[in-house]
Amino acid sequence: MEKNFCFGVDIGGTSVKIGLFHCDGTLVDKWEIKTRKEERGKYILADVAESVLKKMEEKNLNREQILGIGLGVPGPVQKDSIICVSVNLGWGVLNVAEELSGLTGFPVKAANDANVAALGEMWQGGGKGYQNIVMVTLGTGVGGGIILNGQIVSGEHGAAGEIGHMTIEPREQEVCNCGKKGCLEQFASATGIVRMAKKMSKEYKENSVLKNQKEISAKSVLDGAKDGDVLCIQIMDQVAYYLGWALANVSVVMDPQAFVIGGGVSKAGDFLIEKIKQSYQKNAFSTSIEATFTIAKLGNDAGIYGAAKLIVE
Amino acid sequence: MEKNFCFGVDIGGTSVKIGLFHCDGTLVDKWEIKTRKEERGKYILADVAESVLKKMEEKNLNREQILGIGLGVPGPVQKDSIICVSVNLGWGVLNVAEELSGLTGFPVKAANDANVAALGEMWQGGGKGYQNIVMVTLGTGVGGGIILNGQIVSGEHGAAGEIGHMTIEPREQEVCNCGKKGCLEQFASATGIVRMAKKMSKEYKENSVLKNQKEISAKSVLDGAKDGDVLCIQIMDQVAYYLGWALANVSVVMDPQAFVIGGGVSKAGDFLIEKIKQSYQKNAFSTSIEATFTIAKLGNDAGIYGAAKLIVE
Repeated sequence: MEKNFCFGVDIGGTSVKIGLFHCDGTLVDKWEIKTRKEERGKYILADVAESVLKKMEEKNLNREQILGIGLGVPGPVQKDSIICVSVNLGWGVLNVAEELSGLTGFPVKAANDANVAALGEMWQGGGKGYQNIVMVTLGTGVGGGIILNGQIVSGEHGAAGEIGHMTIEPREQEVCNCGKKGCLEQFASATGIVRMAKKMSKEYKENSVLKNQKEISAKSVLDGAKDGDVLCIQIMDQVAYYLGWALANVSVVMDPQAFVIGGGVSKAGDFLIEKIKQSYQKNAFSTSIEATFTIAKLGNDAGIYGAAKLIVE
Repeated sequence: MEKNFCFGVDIGGTSVKIGLFHCDGTLVDKWEIKTRKEERGKYILADVAESVLKKMEEKNLNREQILGIGLGVPGPVQKDSIICVSVNLGWGVLNVAEELSGLTGFPVKAANDANVAALGEMWQGGGKGYQNIVMVTLGTGVGGGIILNGQIVSGEHGAAGEIGHMTIEPREQEVCNCGKKGCLEQFASATGIVRMAKKMSKEYKENSVLKNQKEISAKSVLDGAKDGDVLCIQIMDQVAYYLGWALANVSVVMDPQAFVIGGGVSKAGDFLIEKIKQSYQKNAFSTSIEATFTIAKLGNDAGIYGAAKLIVE
């Protein structure tokens, strides 16, 4: 019997997302279970195993039809299997692949969740058709993932793709979550947009929609910019300037085919992409200037897609 | 008979360097021939073939002992073989590997010369023992090469590793050779050091060895800094600041084990390395902070070593 099904598992701090996939990339079913973090997260993988085996029963799938399980985890992963420390889950050094494989009897491969999301977008999302992409996720923070020749680049310490912590403004005085100053994340994340909006709003003398808001949100800045509010446009120009510059810096290292922009802030769509592209093209080396910019398509499912792809490749 | 010899060929604008290697990485012999650029470089590969075959005769080597030929060329190379445009040599789109293979009967692999030099340093030079390195060559310009899992990263347009053209000072008004403004090369190359020295020397009110020099050279700035000249130290601090920052930006993308610094400026040795490291550690993401910094060891032979490694791997 052909092994043409696999599972993609994306372990988050509050829930575990699981997808049953056909190996051609079609999502057959998806569901969530709770992430049980008690006792240093010792139940998490057992819960995953149980849920996977139950789903097989429900779908009348034989063991012989299952290629294996891919796993995205929130922490650095070494060589397809060992997670160093996941503060979120309470795990220490743990061979997650070996453990889940023992619990299910299936081959398991694991990788960092941000990298896995990038792999998912390459497989079936905004980066489909490309083999060399850089994914940037503009959410509460700025995440990233590098895919080279269709495979995740993890780096020596699992820190490859940490684009959010590229120093982009050495004159910045406020400290980033990571302890440094002037990181991209301080400007281009949802949090960073609010931070800049508060600063720029204070100095701005004209009228603006932001002036009437008790609590400025990234969404209100994005919406304001789309509606033509001059201050909001100035803020988003600044965001796009830093992002385009940072991605040009990425391109002199990796020279990817495409940049895939995801996360909540990416909902600004073409409006934001065009601005990022302008700054990118100003700062990129001439031969890389035509790199493609696309919006991520899989949303919160990128992780399960990418996890499945880990085992399909 | 075991195939335990190979050739590494490094084609430059004025001369072609050729090395005969044992496949374990030992250099058996090296020599140079002239690069005949007339008639759009049509004789270059034939000259290489002739020289290689002559050397085999001289050394009493049989065809069966030769694994193949690796080739470093000054231009972007696609998929081990095709060079797009080498302005220096007059070549257009040319399948250099196929052509040299036809002329010699041996397997041939080709890659860009800066990338090949990085591969050589990984194999037998400053990066020996590592599989993931970034090489930076501080010469007239700033060159770079990325080695991941022991292999060259070329990038989609052959521009991976073009670290010299990372925008590092957006406020810069002078234009770089590449047409952009504020590239690392404008600060950290020998030319960049002289450019900065001239500027800073004008504004500097105290005495300095540079004040008495008709023509400031990068070497005079390096020597002055080592001798304690305050202005020269300030200039080198600035160079190291930009370099360390740029390499920290590289590390959030690739997270390499080691940075190998080569080229004429790297002769400043530990004095410069320590300063670069300080700026790197200030700007790097915490998990990558312990990356190793070493000086390149192979000098002008890095190209023939790396070319040979192309065919050995």
